[in-house]
Amino acid sequence: MNISLIAFDDFTDIDIYFLWDLLNRIEYPEWKVKILGTKAHHISMTGLRLETHGHISEANKSDAVLFGSGMGTRKLMNDTYYLNVFKLDPSLQLIGSMCSGALLLGGLGLIKGLEVTTYPTASGLLEQFGATYIEKPIVVNGNIATAAGCLAAVELSAWVSNRLTSPETTETMLSSVLPNGKGLESLQLTVLEEVSINGL
Amino acid sequence: MNISLIAFDDFTDIDIYFLWDLLNRIEYPEWKVKILGTKAHHISMTGLRLETHGHISEANKSDAVLFGSGMGTRKLMNDTYYLNVFKLDPSLQLIGSMCSGALLLGGLGLIKGLEVTTYPTASGLLEQFGATYIEKPIVVNGNIATAAGCLAAVELSAWVSNRLTSPETTETMLSSVLPNGKGLESLQLTVLEEVSINGL
Repeated sequence: MNISLIAFDDFTDIDIYFLWDLLNRIEYPEWKVKILGTKAHHISMTGLRLETHGHISEANKSDAVLFGSGMGTRKLMNDTYYLNVFKLDPSLQLIGSMCSGALLLGGLGLIKGLEVTTYPTASGLLEQFGATYIEKPIVVNGNIATAAGCLAAVELSAWVSNRLTSPETTETMLSSVLPNGKGLESLQLTVLEEVSINGL
Repeated sequence: MNISLIAFDDFTDIDIYFLWDLLNRIEYPEWKVKILGTKAHHISMTGLRLETHGHISEANKSDAVLFGSGMGTRKLMNDTYYLNVFKLDPSLQLIGSMCSGALLLGGLGLIKGLEVTTYPTASGLLEQFGATYIEKPIVVNGNIATAAGCLAAVELSAWVSNRLTSPETTETMLSSVLPNGKGLESLQLTVLEEVSINGL
């Protein structure tokens, strides 16, 4: 399984690093997580330098493609040179976003007519992509999931893991980051509930 | 206010990056967060390259010093050349750790006779430092706080913010990372409770 995390300049640290850490905790045969970008490194909104593992075009053959967030999305969401690199297929791949990463799904035409979530300050920008904002930690539409509020990275990681591995593997991953003495119920995950709401 | 995050080779990604992201969300006059190490960059357990902003000796003049975690702590907890660089004073500074970062507090002689928390797999190593393990998200002893389970970074960040800024500033920081549609109560923070348990 190949998991691609999409980074760019002016990304929000936690929405990349949290997914990276959580998804690297998954123990599954040939499970490989890569951070992809358009340069050898990207600089976050706080100035951290993140080295990439490959070009965004690698995402086109990944089993799951997850988009990071941050002010960088506002430039890229209308950048056809950037967007045209992606040839994603939600019938074959899992596609997800953290926070304002939903705007990139918008630019790619993947959320037209869908209810999705994004960081509240980005919600007004969804309309141009034909999507409707709903204020939930995660919204699943088939193979497309949008999550928002940085801590919802736990939800998005659980969704990817559940879909590509098993509930047991997901539980092991989640258990490894729980605050000491707390159980899985403390995460109050809504992801399974969302799946049923969308009838999938 | 100067906040130092202590990184080293073989660190756990999220225990540095989560603190970094959360603490950078704090808006307070002259609030400065730096990642300190012994080299220009350190490599995490998953292979990410983290550039440092300064040498660990800068921590000695910081208002708060927070230690990261990871397998690197096992080497450093008994490395006197490394440990002797630190001249920390818990009567003047806030000192904290994520997960196995507590072992470094142990090596520095800061937790002798105290009840502390650490990542469960590191708990057996606390005894040599005269500390007792308790399974809680965060344990506060005066100006020293140990937190464990990676998601407890929220607790440690809230503790630092509460002590150095204000409850309002802390609330704003925490609100900015909540999963969409969830309130602060969903974080189930125990940090204030811990403070009262320790009578401080």
